[in-house]
Amino acid sequence: MSAKAGQPASLNLAAIERAAASLQGQVVLTPCLPSARLSEQLGCALTLKFENFQHSSSFKDRGAYVKLASLSAAERRQGVIAMSAGNHAQGVAYHATRLGIPATIVMPELTPHVKVEKTAQFGAKVILAGDSVEAAAAHALALAKAERLTFIHPFDDPLVIAGQGTIALEMLAAAPDLEVLLVPIGGGGLISGIAIAARALRPAIEIIGVQTAACPAMQRRLAHLPPLAARPTIADGIAVKEPGALTAPIIERLVSEILLVDEPALEAAILALLEVERTVIEGAGAAGLAAVMSHRARFAGRRVGLVLCGGNIDLRILSEVILRGMVRSARLVEVQIEVPDAPGHLARIASLIGEAGGNIVEVHHQRAFSRLSVKSTAMTIALETRNADHVAAIMAKLAEAGVAAKLLHGAAA
Amino acid sequence: MSAKAGQPASLNLAAIERAAASLQGQVVLTPCLPSARLSEQLGCALTLKFENFQHSSSFKDRGAYVKLASLSAAERRQGVIAMSAGNHAQGVAYHATRLGIPATIVMPELTPHVKVEKTAQFGAKVILAGDSVEAAAAHALALAKAERLTFIHPFDDPLVIAGQGTIALEMLAAAPDLEVLLVPIGGGGLISGIAIAARALRPAIEIIGVQTAACPAMQRRLAHLPPLAARPTIADGIAVKEPGALTAPIIERLVSEILLVDEPALEAAILALLEVERTVIEGAGAAGLAAVMSHRARFAGRRVGLVLCGGNIDLRILSEVILRGMVRSARLVEVQIEVPDAPGHLARIASLIGEAGGNIVEVHHQRAFSRLSVKSTAMTIALETRNADHVAAIMAKLAEAGVAAKLLHGAAA
Repeated sequence: MSAKAGQPASLNLAAIERAAASLQGQVVLTPCLPSARLSEQLGCALTLKFENFQHSSSFKDRGAYVKLASLSAAERRQGVIAMSAGNHAQGVAYHATRLGIPATIVMPELTPHVKVEKTAQFGAKVILAGDSVEAAAAHALALAKAERLTFIHPFDDPLVIAGQGTIALEMLAAAPDLEVLLVPIGGGGLISGIAIAARALRPAIEIIGVQTAACPAMQRRLAHLPPLAARPTIADGIAVKEPGALTAPIIERLVSEILLVDEPALEAAILALLEVERTVIEGAGAAGLAAVMSHRARFAGRRVGLVLCGGNIDLRILSEVILRGMVRSARLVEVQIEVPDAPGHLARIASLIGEAGGNIVEVHHQRAFSRLSVKSTAMTIALETRNADHVAAIMAKLAEAGVAAKLLHGAAA
Repeated sequence: MSAKAGQPASLNLAAIERAAASLQGQVVLTPCLPSARLSEQLGCALTLKFENFQHSSSFKDRGAYVKLASLSAAERRQGVIAMSAGNHAQGVAYHATRLGIPATIVMPELTPHVKVEKTAQFGAKVILAGDSVEAAAAHALALAKAERLTFIHPFDDPLVIAGQGTIALEMLAAAPDLEVLLVPIGGGGLISGIAIAARALRPAIEIIGVQTAACPAMQRRLAHLPPLAARPTIADGIAVKEPGALTAPIIERLVSEILLVDEPALEAAILALLEVERTVIEGAGAAGLAAVMSHRARFAGRRVGLVLCGGNIDLRILSEVILRGMVRSARLVEVQIEVPDAPGHLARIASLIGEAGGNIVEVHHQRAFSRLSVKSTAMTIALETRNADHVAAIMAKLAEAGVAAKLLHGAAA
């Protein structure tokens, strides 16, 4: 195959097939299954690739292994270095240790401890340096030079891209009639590999990228727009401010569009995967589903493959996503009730709510901060409910009984 | 094959292979994968069968389909009925609807609304009747007789048992060298089918059952002990008070032992599957892993297959399991601090905690109920921490600064 504009001659379907051969038995052949229930809900035929089943819970295992396995004996002895606060760190740490290659991972100083610990558990030497991803990267490059370590780039490397591209071979083997692949974009390594493989095998297949609206760096670069200041996002895995130099032209040539998703859509997608698919997916991994949820007409009736690229979400954050999702769908509401400050009133209100099928999970009494008469008290009651209709029925029952109640939080509020 | 004591002549490997043939394309060929990380943590080689990937998120799809597909045209027209507050209801509702068979599901009156709704969404007519599972079953049987509906038993039926047994065929195809299978027991249908298939294919394989200590009905029946009063459990899917008449003798003959697990072990297993395997498993489905965690010596060095039989856990409960698990592993602690009731003290304490790397997530001031001088106030601070050592370091730092702090909750308390 001849070299194409912006794509190294060596980065083609054959390279990705070689990567797949070298990955045999080294990474998990992750499940690729249709989702009947999400398909029905969203009006298209969805096939999910569960990369959260990889050993380090993300697709990064693939590229990291292919790159590490390509090193010479001398390079292996000398060791490797990478900069990452997330999945790339874990993928490199795990496979380098397995291959007996000393690995140093540089992480920004404020990296959450759980990620530092997990990377260290995989056997890497972790160095915390720099107050930003950029500063940490500069430190890693300097250290690579000083100690003659091979720098393992998270995306701008043909072997890493070829490794990630093996996902497309597996998806098209499991579901040969896919019409669209929706792939999250951070630096762009994942979608570049997938686009090269999938478009070579099925020239008519459409590849669509997804970025978070909080950090749409690749989308703006390809649209020749100036970068925006990044905002916080639950999809931290794809909040990459500097798109790849190698990946950008590949994406420009092979990807038809980059869709943006907002935070509520990402949270809703994480919750749907948890609730319907019973699987734990991080924000970046849920971006594809968030895009389908946000652009239903765009995908109606089509056979869509989603790459659930990772599952590394902090469990406390996950627990908050669950509770916020319950609030959004009116399964958890907060009601403020004004009652005379005298015995028996809580019992009466609790009975009314219980009879209407609401499950009281929290009660707070507001006294000092209440604007009511000192003879009244404001109670805030958190309730588990069924849906917005149920909330309306409970509120109606309270109103009927002459109770002054106000919905504070919940979809119906 | 000749009939064996307590096992219908028709219930053998051939019957289970026929069931597997009829299930082709009708249920999900669920993933069966080794768990490298849990294996390392627990000192044995674990293979997991992810039945939470089934359409209704549990293995019940299998038995329900095999039974429904066996009905005559007349029986199908007349319709079926089942009694279940859980997974069996959903499995029957889903497959009956797919096959065009009218389905009635009787659920006890106090069944959580989310289960009622999901069963109704799968297309069944749901009837709430009876203040207990027993009363609901009596109602269902009476209705079956009156309306000439075929009653689909959740476990005491050879075709249902054969359907569940197909799991063993898939597990042994994926991991032929398994030495032990650990299978949760409620009524006993799942383990009966699995034991018949697995022991026929691999006579030396050991089959071990798991029950919750809160409701060990089958274990006590086989030990000729009187039943115990059932206690509440997170493993409600296996809290079956009346073991199967058909399943008990099969289990007695083919199962070597029934292990019991307690609630903390079940919660820890759910959390480990969420955190390490990134998969959502209900209490009953996590019982096998809970047994390995509670009896590590029993499984050390062995090749163990676990059937993760279902994923239908209430999401609010899941969110509580996460937070309780963080408390157990000292990643979330509550500290009571006594300070003079004057400006500046919270700032000072928050600084000390922040410098020690603790992340404050909640602050409460206790005034009216405090036993301290009215010039002092008790603050309760919830903190996110790394582990017990980190908690100890934070407490030491506070003590050093002369702050009176007491650990209220957390593994180190």
